[in-house]
Amino acid sequence: MNGFFERITTDRSTRARLGRIHTAHGDIDTPVFMPVGTQGTVKSLSPDELEAAGSQIILGNTYHLYLRPGLEILRKAGGLHRFASWDRPILTDSGGFQVFSLAKLRKIHENGVVFQSHIDGSYHEFTPENVMEMQRIIGADIIMAFDECTPYPATEGYVAESNTLTYAWAQRCKKVWQEMEPEYGHPQALFGIVQGGTFPHLRKQSAEQLVSLDLPGYAIGGLSVGEPKELMYEMTGLVTEYLPEDKPRYLMGVGKPEDIVEAVALGVDMFDCVIPTRNGRKGQAFTWQGPLTVKNASFKEDFRPIDERCGCPACRRFSRAYIRHLFQAQEILGLRLVSLHNIWFYQDLMTAIRQAIRDNRFEAWRREFYRSYPVENNSTDVEVHLDES
Amino acid sequence: MNGFFERITTDRSTRARLGRIHTAHGDIDTPVFMPVGTQGTVKSLSPDELEAAGSQIILGNTYHLYLRPGLEILRKAGGLHRFASWDRPILTDSGGFQVFSLAKLRKIHENGVVFQSHIDGSYHEFTPENVMEMQRIIGADIIMAFDECTPYPATEGYVAESNTLTYAWAQRCKKVWQEMEPEYGHPQALFGIVQGGTFPHLRKQSAEQLVSLDLPGYAIGGLSVGEPKELMYEMTGLVTEYLPEDKPRYLMGVGKPEDIVEAVALGVDMFDCVIPTRNGRKGQAFTWQGPLTVKNASFKEDFRPIDERCGCPACRRFSRAYIRHLFQAQEILGLRLVSLHNIWFYQDLMTAIRQAIRDNRFEAWRREFYRSYPVENNSTDVEVHLDES
Repeated sequence: MNGFFERITTDRSTRARLGRIHTAHGDIDTPVFMPVGTQGTVKSLSPDELEAAGSQIILGNTYHLYLRPGLEILRKAGGLHRFASWDRPILTDSGGFQVFSLAKLRKIHENGVVFQSHIDGSYHEFTPENVMEMQRIIGADIIMAFDECTPYPATEGYVAESNTLTYAWAQRCKKVWQEMEPEYGHPQALFGIVQGGTFPHLRKQSAEQLVSLDLPGYAIGGLSVGEPKELMYEMTGLVTEYLPEDKPRYLMGVGKPEDIVEAVALGVDMFDCVIPTRNGRKGQAFTWQGPLTVKNASFKEDFRPIDERCGCPACRRFSRAYIRHLFQAQEILGLRLVSLHNIWFYQDLMTAIRQAIRDNRFEAWRREFYRSYPVENNSTDVEVHLDES
Repeated sequence: MNGFFERITTDRSTRARLGRIHTAHGDIDTPVFMPVGTQGTVKSLSPDELEAAGSQIILGNTYHLYLRPGLEILRKAGGLHRFASWDRPILTDSGGFQVFSLAKLRKIHENGVVFQSHIDGSYHEFTPENVMEMQRIIGADIIMAFDECTPYPATEGYVAESNTLTYAWAQRCKKVWQEMEPEYGHPQALFGIVQGGTFPHLRKQSAEQLVSLDLPGYAIGGLSVGEPKELMYEMTGLVTEYLPEDKPRYLMGVGKPEDIVEAVALGVDMFDCVIPTRNGRKGQAFTWQGPLTVKNASFKEDFRPIDERCGCPACRRFSRAYIRHLFQAQEILGLRLVSLHNIWFYQDLMTAIRQAIRDNRFEAWRREFYRSYPVENNSTDVEVHLDES
């Protein structure tokens, strides 16, 4: 994993970093936004469309892929890249979040978690060991350690105990990762996930525990689960202080454009979130002037594109009035176009962020961003990036 | 309308014709298949995808467009071409079929039809005059006369009376078409619709009545509504005998690949049908070996494309196993890919048909086609090409 992450520059006035991750499926410029392809497809979009939007890496969910299509088919296909016809990098999560948020009747024990499938109620067990084996079969370029995602709120005692479990599981994940060869020849970078709830000393403890394992990268988990935004930013800024400068940092499940801007300023390199596609399917389009509910009646005779600054296929060819009509008439093309626009917007946002860091003026850029982009509410959504449907 | 239709050649051994229709939005090579864009969009597909598939003309439905988005918005947009961002030719039907099949509580009188919207139950009236005005506002290149689509079965007496009505309405449509200027400067060709149920003498009567109006083209309506296939073919062959050689003939709402092959042999030039997209959304893919239900379990480890002979984006990039997974997981990309493949297949079929006529070997080509393509059942579906949802 030498040369996995390359730091290019750090912004003068904030902690924003410009970097590059090297994988067998290509390089990833950071800060990066990763569209979520829960079940091996970013909802409603094709790989061509994601590529044209500038997506450098997509996410897959181990929990969903394990249930459907199943590991047997993925192995026979030659892994998720080939199965889904996506040649660029992929990151898979460990299933930890879904098991704790989506599955039914879960029972946590030291060895792992027993749960019932949300699809058919069948019983399954995830352990650090089998989750690593699953991610070997899926074959993503970046894989995640199995962790317990603590809810918000949670007691200090619960989170402290959970930290012990997450640390022990991360050690067991590392062991399998070191001992088991990749299935398809290309290396897979293992990231640890820092937990610790909203307790600064437990965040510090978890970060230090994970960092001691010297993994290729680190994620910040257990945020964007309903806590106030200030707490999310506080915890993020605190954890990045304890993470090594020469490893990428990934804030899981975040977020809205303004959340990404803030977390970049705190030194985060990687993001994933269902918001651009989930909100797109509901007719909410992101623009440099803020979100716009394109299906609103006020747009029925508005023949301008969603965003005149945008070069995406939806904005080049279609009007708000037409897209609104498609939503009114419940036509699939409507949600396709807004999802596509939103992925372009997020990728354009990251390109602008990277340019601002490169130019050493991220703080000024951020002020300019907020001059047109209104900040909405003050509490994080409960993260649902693992079940978009 | 001089030079509207150009006959290029007629096949030696069948009545198949090769031709070209000239419109302000471009030429249309016939025999042609027109994908159905009921509500201003061919379900799940983008205009770019339809263009890449070789679609030369699409259909819109006056009934649906009148209800949603409404004529006011279409007029302000500058017509359907601009509203839907489709620069190639468009054909709109007259709403006759939908009023008789989809709307509620319809009441036919000499002046027109009063009906309730299938969306909200509101009352509306379609007359030959206002349907022409609507089609002027929608602005299609080819527009249809308002007719009564007789059901199957219907009594001889009912169909005879209906013929009188359809003929009177066609005359009134022609009058408005001649007196009212197009809205957007480009000419709109008016087609009459031959009815007459399954009664040969009434089909002959209707054809002769319509032909006496000397319209730019003629459609055969009231078929593919549940009658046996032999009757459909018999009526089609009979009507084309009475239609002028120098005008295009359009068999409305037909059909499956084999229906198109048969009707081309009987001298039909134009087709429309929801089957490629409607069946595509249900996971049925058309191939040169016949239809294939790609969501079947038998394809779960089949890593071949839907059709190895096909050059469509779905077949170039994705496997049956992956597409089956998308249907299992209820992912939109699945129905997008099969719909796209089916439109390509239909366009490839028409290209092959045109080449065979050009080579004066349509009869031989047709035998070759049936050597690999199995013919299924023997009765027509009740046509539902006007409400796909």
